[in-house]
Amino acid sequence: MEFYSYWRSSAAYRVRIALAFKGMAADMQYVHLLKDGGQQRLSAYKSLNPSQLVPTLVDGDLTLNQSLAILEYLEIKQPQPALLPADLQLALKVRAVTLDIACDIHPLNNLRVLQYLTGPLQLSEQQKLHWIQHWLQQGFQALELRLSHQAGNCCFGDMVTWADLCLIPQIYNALRFGLDMSPYPTLWRVYQYCQTLPAFIAAAPEQQPDAQ
Amino acid sequence: MEFYSYWRSSAAYRVRIALAFKGMAADMQYVHLLKDGGQQRLSAYKSLNPSQLVPTLVDGDLTLNQSLAILEYLEIKQPQPALLPADLQLALKVRAVTLDIACDIHPLNNLRVLQYLTGPLQLSEQQKLHWIQHWLQQGFQALELRLSHQAGNCCFGDMVTWADLCLIPQIYNALRFGLDMSPYPTLWRVYQYCQTLPAFIAAAPEQQPDAQ
Repeated sequence: MEFYSYWRSSAAYRVRIALAFKGMAADMQYVHLLKDGGQQRLSAYKSLNPSQLVPTLVDGDLTLNQSLAILEYLEIKQPQPALLPADLQLALKVRAVTLDIACDIHPLNNLRVLQYLTGPLQLSEQQKLHWIQHWLQQGFQALELRLSHQAGNCCFGDMVTWADLCLIPQIYNALRFGLDMSPYPTLWRVYQYCQTLPAFIAAAPEQQPDAQ
Repeated sequence: MEFYSYWRSSAAYRVRIALAFKGMAADMQYVHLLKDGGQQRLSAYKSLNPSQLVPTLVDGDLTLNQSLAILEYLEIKQPQPALLPADLQLALKVRAVTLDIACDIHPLNNLRVLQYLTGPLQLSEQQKLHWIQHWLQQGFQALELRLSHQAGNCCFGDMVTWADLCLIPQIYNALRFGLDMSPYPTLWRVYQYCQTLPAFIAAAPEQQPDAQ
Protein backbone atom coordinates (compact mmCIF):
# COMPACT_ATOMS: atom_id res chain seq x y z
CA MET A 1 0.00 0.00 0.00
CA GLU A 2 1.07 3.56 -0.69
CA PHE A 3 -0.23 6.28 1.59
CA TYR A 4 -0.05 9.94 0.62
CA SER A 5 0.24 12.05 3.73
CA TYR A 6 1.13 15.48 5.06
CA TRP A 7 2.31 15.71 8.64
CA ARG A 8 -0.13 18.41 9.76
CA SER A 9 -3.18 17.16 7.86
CA SER A 10 -5.78 16.08 10.41
CA ALA A 11 -7.33 13.75 7.84
CA ALA A 12 -4.01 12.00 7.13
CA TYR A 13 -3.30 11.85 10.88
CA ARG A 14 -6.55 9.86 11.42
CA VAL A 15 -5.44 7.21 8.95
CA ARG A 16 -1.87 7.12 10.31
CA ILE A 17 -3.31 6.22 13.72
CA ALA A 18 -5.39 3.41 12.18
CA LEU A 19 -2.40 2.00 10.28
CA ALA A 20 -0.28 2.04 13.44
CA PHE A 21 -3.07 0.63 15.62
CA LYS A 22 -3.61 -2.30 13.24
CA GLY A 23 0.11 -2.74 12.65
CA MET A 24 -0.31 -2.32 8.89
CA ALA A 25 2.65 -1.25 6.81
CA ALA A 26 2.34 1.39 4.10
CA ASP A 27 4.89 3.02 1.86
CA MET A 28 4.57 6.64 2.95
CA GLN A 29 4.53 9.33 0.28
CA TYR A 30 4.71 12.94 1.37
CA VAL A 31 2.71 15.70 -0.25
CA HIS A 32 3.75 19.10 1.04
CA LEU A 33 0.66 21.32 1.13
CA LEU A 34 2.66 24.58 1.16
CA LYS A 35 5.82 23.91 -0.89
CA ASP A 36 5.80 24.56 -4.65
CA GLY A 37 2.49 26.40 -4.28
CA GLY A 38 1.08 23.20 -2.81
CA GLN A 39 2.32 19.85 -4.10
CA GLN A 40 -1.27 18.54 -3.99
CA ARG A 41 -1.86 20.71 -7.08
CA LEU A 42 0.89 19.03 -9.15
CA SER A 43 -0.46 16.98 -12.03
CA ALA A 44 0.97 13.66 -10.78
CA TYR A 45 -0.94 13.96 -7.52
CA LYS A 46 -4.00 15.49 -9.13
CA SER A 47 -4.31 12.46 -11.38
CA LEU A 48 -4.43 10.26 -8.26
CA ASN A 49 -6.81 12.57 -6.43
CA PRO A 50 -8.64 15.23 -8.46
CA SER A 51 -9.79 16.90 -5.22
CA GLN A 52 -6.16 17.93 -4.61
CA LEU A 53 -6.45 17.08 -0.95
CA VAL A 54 -4.66 14.57 1.26
CA PRO A 55 -4.81 11.73 2.11
CA THR A 56 -4.94 9.16 -0.70
CA LEU A 57 -4.36 5.43 -0.37
CA VAL A 58 -3.26 3.23 -3.26
CA ASP A 59 -3.45 -0.54 -2.87
CA GLY A 60 -3.03 -2.48 -6.11
CA ASP A 61 -5.73 -1.27 -8.47
CA LEU A 62 -7.66 0.54 -5.74
CA THR A 63 -7.01 4.27 -5.42
CA LEU A 64 -9.04 5.71 -2.59
CA ASN A 65 -9.39 9.24 -1.25
CA GLN A 66 -11.28 10.52 1.81
CA SER A 67 -9.90 9.53 5.19
CA LEU A 68 -13.18 7.97 6.37
CA ALA A 69 -13.47 5.81 3.24
CA ILE A 70 -9.87 4.72 3.83
CA LEU A 71 -10.69 3.83 7.46
CA GLU A 72 -13.60 1.75 6.14
CA TYR A 73 -11.21 -0.07 3.80
CA LEU A 74 -8.64 -0.78 6.51
CA GLU A 75 -11.42 -2.22 8.69
CA ILE A 76 -12.34 -4.61 5.86
CA LYS A 77 -8.76 -5.46 4.90
CA GLN A 78 -7.64 -6.13 8.44
CA PRO A 79 -10.58 -6.41 10.84
CA GLN A 80 -8.49 -6.99 13.97
CA PRO A 81 -7.85 -5.08 16.15
CA ALA A 82 -11.24 -3.53 15.40
CA LEU A 83 -11.77 0.22 15.48
CA LEU A 84 -15.58 -0.05 15.45
CA PRO A 85 -17.62 -1.73 18.20
CA ALA A 86 -19.24 -5.08 17.33
CA ASP A 87 -22.58 -3.79 18.65
CA LEU A 88 -24.38 -2.29 15.64
CA GLN A 89 -26.12 0.56 17.45
CA LEU A 90 -22.93 1.56 19.21
CA ALA A 91 -21.02 1.42 15.92
CA LEU A 92 -23.59 3.80 14.42
CA LYS A 93 -23.06 6.20 17.33
CA VAL A 94 -19.30 6.03 16.72
CA ARG A 95 -19.90 6.79 13.05
CA ALA A 96 -22.06 9.80 13.95
CA VAL A 97 -19.38 11.29 16.23
CA THR A 98 -16.76 10.62 13.56
CA LEU A 99 -18.91 12.59 11.11
CA ASP A 100 -19.58 15.34 13.68
CA ILE A 101 -15.85 16.00 13.50
CA ALA A 102 -15.17 15.20 9.84
CA CYS A 103 -18.17 17.13 8.45
CA ASP A 104 -19.02 19.82 10.99
CA ILE A 105 -15.68 20.88 12.49
CA HIS A 106 -12.67 19.97 10.37
CA PRO A 107 -13.76 21.25 6.91
CA LEU A 108 -14.21 24.79 8.20
CA ASN A 109 -10.68 25.11 9.51
CA ASN A 110 -8.51 23.30 7.02
CA LEU A 111 -5.69 24.97 5.15
CA ARG A 112 -7.48 25.86 1.90
CA VAL A 113 -10.30 27.56 3.81
CA LEU A 114 -7.95 29.57 6.01
CA GLN A 115 -6.02 30.58 2.87
CA TYR A 116 -9.27 31.81 1.32
CA LEU A 117 -10.13 33.87 4.42
CA THR A 118 -6.87 35.79 4.45
CA GLY A 119 -6.42 35.75 0.64
CA PRO A 120 -9.52 36.65 -1.42
CA LEU A 121 -11.55 37.78 1.61
CA GLN A 122 -8.63 39.77 3.07
CA LEU A 123 -9.58 39.04 6.66
CA SER A 124 -7.11 39.93 9.39
CA GLU A 125 -5.20 37.28 11.35
CA GLN A 126 -7.40 38.18 14.32
CA GLN A 127 -10.59 37.56 12.32
CA LYS A 128 -9.15 34.28 11.05
CA LEU A 129 -8.44 33.20 14.63
CA HIS A 130 -11.99 34.09 15.71
CA TRP A 131 -13.35 32.03 12.80
CA ILE A 132 -11.22 29.03 13.76
CA GLN A 133 -12.11 29.22 17.43
CA HIS A 134 -15.82 29.79 16.75
CA TRP A 135 -16.27 26.53 14.82
CA LEU A 136 -14.09 24.57 17.20
CA GLN A 137 -16.14 25.84 20.14
CA GLN A 138 -19.46 25.06 18.41
CA GLY A 139 -18.28 21.54 17.62
CA PHE A 140 -16.58 20.78 20.92
CA GLN A 141 -19.54 22.04 22.99
CA ALA A 142 -21.80 19.54 21.20
CA LEU A 143 -19.26 16.72 21.51
CA GLU A 144 -18.75 17.36 25.21
CA LEU A 145 -22.52 17.07 25.78
CA ARG A 146 -22.71 13.97 23.61
CA LEU A 147 -19.74 12.12 25.12
CA SER A 148 -19.72 13.14 28.78
CA HIS A 149 -22.05 10.29 29.80
CA GLN A 150 -20.46 7.50 27.80
CA ALA A 151 -16.76 8.25 27.57
CA GLY A 152 -14.24 6.27 29.56
CA ASN A 153 -10.61 6.61 28.68
CA CYS A 154 -11.81 6.90 25.08
CA CYS A 155 -14.85 8.54 23.47
CA PHE A 156 -16.81 5.29 23.77
CA GLY A 157 -15.88 3.55 26.99
CA ASP A 158 -12.34 2.25 26.94
CA MET A 159 -12.28 1.04 23.34
CA VAL A 160 -10.27 3.02 20.80
CA THR A 161 -12.61 3.80 17.89
CA TRP A 162 -12.81 6.00 14.81
CA ALA A 163 -14.20 8.72 17.10
CA ASP A 164 -10.83 8.91 18.89
CA LEU A 165 -8.97 8.77 15.58
CA CYS A 166 -10.85 11.92 14.56
CA LEU A 167 -10.98 13.67 17.94
CA ILE A 168 -7.28 13.60 18.77
CA PRO A 169 -6.11 15.26 15.51
CA GLN A 170 -8.88 17.84 15.91
CA ILE A 171 -7.71 18.72 19.43
CA TYR A 172 -4.10 18.80 18.23
CA ASN A 173 -5.28 21.34 15.67
CA ALA A 174 -7.24 23.32 18.29
CA LEU A 175 -4.17 23.59 20.51
CA ARG A 176 -2.15 24.99 17.61
CA PHE A 177 -4.66 27.82 17.47
CA GLY A 178 -4.64 28.39 21.21
CA LEU A 179 -8.14 27.12 22.02
CA ASP A 180 -8.90 26.94 25.73
CA MET A 181 -9.86 23.29 26.32
CA SER A 182 -11.05 23.78 29.93
CA PRO A 183 -14.78 23.88 28.94
CA TYR A 184 -14.41 20.35 27.54
CA PRO A 185 -13.12 18.15 30.39
CA THR A 186 -14.30 14.89 28.78
CA LEU A 187 -12.62 15.61 25.46
CA TRP A 188 -9.47 16.70 27.24
CA ARG A 189 -9.36 13.53 29.38
CA VAL A 190 -9.68 11.37 26.24
CA TYR A 191 -6.97 13.39 24.52
CA GLN A 192 -4.58 12.96 27.44
CA TYR A 193 -5.19 9.21 27.58
CA CYS A 194 -4.84 8.60 23.84
CA GLN A 195 -1.56 10.50 23.81
CA THR A 196 -0.10 7.68 25.93
CA LEU A 197 -0.95 4.94 23.39
CA PRO A 198 1.80 3.76 20.99
CA ALA A 199 -0.35 4.11 17.83
CA PHE A 200 -1.22 7.72 18.62
CA ILE A 201 2.39 8.51 19.50
CA ALA A 202 3.69 7.00 16.25
CA ALA A 203 1.11 8.86 14.16
CA ALA A 204 1.64 12.29 15.74
CA PRO A 205 2.55 15.07 13.29
CA GLU A 206 5.91 15.82 14.92
CA GLN A 207 6.95 12.16 14.55
CA GLN A 208 6.59 12.21 10.77
CA PRO A 209 9.67 12.40 8.52
CA ASP A 210 8.11 15.35 6.67
CA ALA A 211 7.55 17.37 9.87
CA GLN A 212 9.21 20.75 10.01
CA MET B 1 -39.27 6.07 13.25
CA GLU B 2 -39.33 9.82 13.72
CA PHE B 3 -37.33 11.91 11.28
CA TYR B 4 -36.45 15.53 12.03
CA SER B 5 -36.15 17.44 8.79
CA TYR B 6 -36.06 20.90 7.25
CA TRP B 7 -37.18 21.23 3.64
CA ARG B 8 -34.09 23.07 2.38
CA SER B 9 -31.48 21.13 4.38
CA SER B 10 -29.30 19.19 1.92
CA ALA B 11 -28.46 16.69 4.65
CA ALA B 12 -32.13 15.99 5.43
CA TYR B 13 -32.88 15.82 1.68
CA ARG B 14 -30.33 12.96 1.29
CA VAL B 15 -32.12 10.89 3.92
CA ARG B 16 -35.58 11.72 2.54
CA ILE B 17 -34.49 10.25 -0.81
CA ALA B 18 -33.26 7.07 0.92
CA LEU B 19 -36.51 6.68 2.87
CA ALA B 20 -38.57 7.12 -0.30
CA PHE B 21 -36.30 4.84 -2.36
CA LYS B 22 -36.59 2.05 0.20
CA GLY B 23 -40.29 2.71 0.80
CA MET B 24 -39.72 3.22 4.52
CA ALA B 25 -42.25 5.19 6.52
CA ALA B 26 -41.18 7.80 9.05
CA ASP B 27 -43.15 10.22 11.16
CA MET B 28 -41.83 13.53 9.85
CA GLN B 29 -41.01 16.26 12.36
CA TYR B 30 -40.18 19.70 11.05
CA VAL B 31 -37.47 21.88 12.52
CA HIS B 32 -37.53 25.35 11.01
CA LEU B 33 -33.96 26.60 10.84
CA LEU B 34 -34.95 30.28 10.59
CA LYS B 35 -38.17 30.65 12.65
CA ASP B 36 -37.94 31.51 16.36
CA GLY B 37 -34.25 32.31 15.92
CA GLY B 38 -33.77 28.76 14.65
CA GLN B 39 -35.93 25.97 16.12
CA GLN B 40 -32.85 23.71 16.12
CA ARG B 41 -31.65 25.79 19.09
CA LEU B 42 -34.75 25.09 21.23
CA SER B 43 -33.99 22.91 24.24
CA ALA B 44 -36.30 20.06 23.19
CA TYR B 45 -34.41 19.61 19.91
CA LYS B 46 -31.02 20.31 21.45
CA SER B 47 -31.56 17.45 23.90
CA LEU B 48 -32.08 15.14 20.90
CA ASN B 49 -29.18 16.58 18.96
CA PRO B 50 -26.64 18.72 20.85
CA SER B 51 -25.10 19.81 17.51
CA GLN B 52 -28.31 21.78 16.82
CA LEU B 53 -28.30 20.66 13.21
CA VAL B 54 -30.74 18.62 11.14
CA PRO B 55 -31.39 15.82 10.48
CA THR B 56 -31.98 13.50 13.43
CA LEU B 57 -33.58 10.07 13.31
CA VAL B 58 -35.23 8.43 16.32
CA ASP B 59 -36.12 4.74 16.17
CA GLY B 60 -37.05 3.20 19.52
CA ASP B 61 -34.09 3.74 21.83
CA LEU B 62 -31.75 4.77 19.01
CA THR B 63 -31.31 8.50 18.45
CA LEU B 64 -28.99 9.15 15.56
CA ASN B 65 -27.68 12.34 14.00
CA GLN B 66 -25.52 12.86 10.90
CA SER B 67 -27.15 12.08 7.56
CA LEU B 68 -24.46 9.58 6.51
CA ALA B 69 -24.76 7.63 9.76
CA ILE B 70 -28.53 7.57 9.21
CA LEU B 71 -28.03 6.27 5.65
CA GLU B 72 -25.81 3.54 7.12
CA TYR B 73 -28.60 2.61 9.56
CA LEU B 74 -31.28 2.49 6.86
CA GLU B 75 -29.03 0.19 4.80
CA ILE B 76 -28.81 -2.19 7.78
CA LYS B 77 -32.48 -1.93 8.76
CA GLN B 78 -33.78 -2.46 5.24
CA PRO B 79 -31.05 -3.71 2.90
CA GLN B 80 -33.25 -3.85 -0.22
CA PRO B 81 -33.33 -2.01 -2.52
CA ALA B 82 -29.64 -1.42 -1.83
CA LEU B 83 -28.06 2.02 -2.12
CA LEU B 84 -24.49 0.69 -2.03
CA PRO B 85 -23.03 -1.67 -4.67
CA ALA B 86 -22.41 -5.28 -3.57
CA ASP B 87 -18.84 -5.04 -4.94
CA LEU B 88 -16.68 -3.93 -2.02
CA GLN B 89 -14.21 -1.80 -3.98
CA LEU B 90 -17.02 -0.07 -5.82
CA ALA B 91 -18.85 0.53 -2.55
CA LEU B 92 -15.70 2.19 -1.17
CA LYS B 93 -15.58 4.46 -4.23
CA VAL B 94 -19.21 5.39 -3.64
CA ARG B 95 -18.39 6.17 -0.01
CA ALA B 96 -15.49 8.40 -1.08
CA VAL B 97 -17.66 10.44 -3.48
CA THR B 98 -20.34 10.69 -0.78
CA LEU B 99 -17.70 12.11 1.56
CA ASP B 100 -16.32 14.41 -1.17
CA ILE B 101 -19.70 16.11 -1.07
CA ALA B 102 -20.54 15.75 2.63
CA CYS B 103 -17.11 16.83 3.93
CA ASP B 104 -15.56 19.02 1.23
CA ILE B 105 -18.49 20.88 -0.35
CA HIS B 106 -21.61 20.99 1.79
CA PRO B 107 -20.18 22.11 5.18
CA LEU B 108 -18.76 25.30 3.68
CA ASN B 109 -22.08 26.53 2.34
CA ASN B 110 -24.64 25.55 4.90
CA LEU B 111 -26.87 28.06 6.64
CA ARG B 112 -24.87 28.60 9.84
CA VAL B 113 -21.70 29.32 7.86
CA LEU B 114 -23.42 31.78 5.53
CA GLN B 115 -24.95 33.47 8.57
CA TYR B 116 -21.48 33.84 10.08
CA LEU B 117 -20.10 35.38 6.87
CA THR B 118 -22.70 38.14 6.70
CA GLY B 119 -23.10 38.45 10.50
CA PRO B 120 -19.85 38.56 12.53
CA LEU B 121 -17.62 38.91 9.44
CA GLN B 122 -19.87 41.53 7.84
CA LEU B 123 -19.19 40.35 4.32
CA SER B 124 -21.34 41.73 1.51
CA GLU B 125 -23.94 39.62 -0.30
CA GLN B 126 -21.58 39.67 -3.29
CA GLN B 127 -18.68 38.29 -1.23
CA LYS B 128 -20.97 35.64 0.22
CA LEU B 129 -22.01 34.60 -3.29
CA HIS B 130 -18.36 34.37 -4.38
CA TRP B 131 -17.59 32.21 -1.36
CA ILE B 132 -20.50 29.87 -2.15
CA GLN B 133 -19.61 29.58 -5.82
CA HIS B 134 -15.89 29.12 -5.14
CA TRP B 135 -16.36 25.99 -3.00
CA LEU B 136 -19.03 24.58 -5.30
CA GLN B 137 -16.71 25.04 -8.28
CA GLN B 138 -13.75 23.46 -6.47
CA GLY B 139 -15.84 20.48 -5.49
CA PHE B 140 -17.72 20.03 -8.75
CA GLN B 141 -14.54 20.26 -10.86
CA ALA B 142 -13.06 17.36 -8.91
CA LEU B 143 -16.29 15.36 -9.08
CA GLU B 144 -16.64 15.90 -12.82
CA LEU B 145 -13.11 14.51 -13.32
CA ARG B 146 -13.78 11.62 -10.98
CA LEU B 147 -17.15 10.61 -12.39
CA SER B 148 -16.92 11.36 -16.12
CA HIS B 149 -15.49 7.91 -16.93
CA GLN B 150 -17.78 5.81 -14.78
CA ALA B 151 -21.12 7.59 -14.62
CA GLY B 152 -24.11 6.27 -16.52
CA ASN B 153 -27.51 7.67 -15.69
CA CYS B 154 -26.24 7.81 -12.11
CA CYS B 155 -22.85 8.64 -10.58
CA PHE B 156 -21.88 4.95 -10.65
CA GLY B 157 -23.30 3.37 -13.77
CA ASP B 158 -27.06 3.12 -13.66
CA MET B 159 -27.42 2.19 -10.01
CA VAL B 160 -28.77 4.80 -7.61
CA THR B 161 -26.28 5.06 -4.74
CA TRP B 162 -25.44 7.31 -1.80
CA ALA B 163 -23.37 9.37 -4.23
CA ASP B 164 -26.56 10.40 -6.06
CA LEU B 165 -28.35 11.00 -2.76
CA CYS B 166 -25.65 13.54 -1.92
CA LEU B 167 -25.07 14.98 -5.39
CA ILE B 168 -28.65 15.91 -6.25
CA PRO B 169 -29.28 18.01 -3.10
CA GLN B 170 -25.89 19.67 -3.64
CA ILE B 171 -26.80 20.64 -7.22
CA TYR B 172 -30.24 21.81 -6.05
CA ASN B 173 -28.36 24.05 -3.63
CA ALA B 174 -25.95 25.24 -6.35
CA LEU B 175 -28.85 26.23 -8.61
CA ARG B 176 -30.37 28.31 -5.81
CA PHE B 177 -27.16 30.32 -5.82
CA GLY B 178 -27.05 30.68 -9.58
CA LEU B 179 -24.07 28.41 -10.30
CA ASP B 180 -23.40 27.80 -13.99
CA MET B 181 -23.51 24.01 -14.35
CA SER B 182 -22.26 23.91 -17.96
CA PRO B 183 -18.64 23.02 -16.97
CA TYR B 184 -19.99 19.84 -15.35
CA PRO B 185 -21.85 17.90 -18.06
CA THR B 186 -21.63 14.55 -16.25
CA LEU B 187 -23.00 15.92 -13.00
CA TRP B 188 -25.73 17.75 -14.89
CA ARG B 189 -26.76 14.61 -16.80
CA VAL B 190 -27.03 12.63 -13.54
CA TYR B 191 -29.04 15.44 -11.97
CA GLN B 192 -31.49 15.52 -14.89
CA TYR B 193 -31.96 11.75 -14.79
CA CYS B 194 -32.45 11.48 -11.03
CA GLN B 195 -35.05 14.24 -11.14
CA THR B 196 -37.27 11.82 -13.09
CA LEU B 197 -37.18 9.11 -10.38
CA PRO B 198 -40.13 8.89 -7.95
CA ALA B 199 -37.96 8.81 -4.80
CA PHE B 200 -36.13 11.98 -5.80
CA ILE B 201 -39.37 13.71 -6.75
CA ALA B 202 -41.01 12.81 -3.44
CA ALA B 203 -37.99 13.99 -1.44
CA ALA B 204 -37.56 17.34 -3.21
CA PRO B 205 -37.63 20.41 -0.96
CA GLU B 206 -40.65 21.97 -2.66
CA GLN B 207 -42.67 18.80 -2.08
CA GLN B 208 -42.28 18.96 1.69
CA PRO B 209 -45.16 20.14 3.90
CA ASP B 210 -42.82 22.64 5.59
CA ALA B 211 -41.74 24.23 2.27
CA GLN B 212 -42.41 27.93 1.93
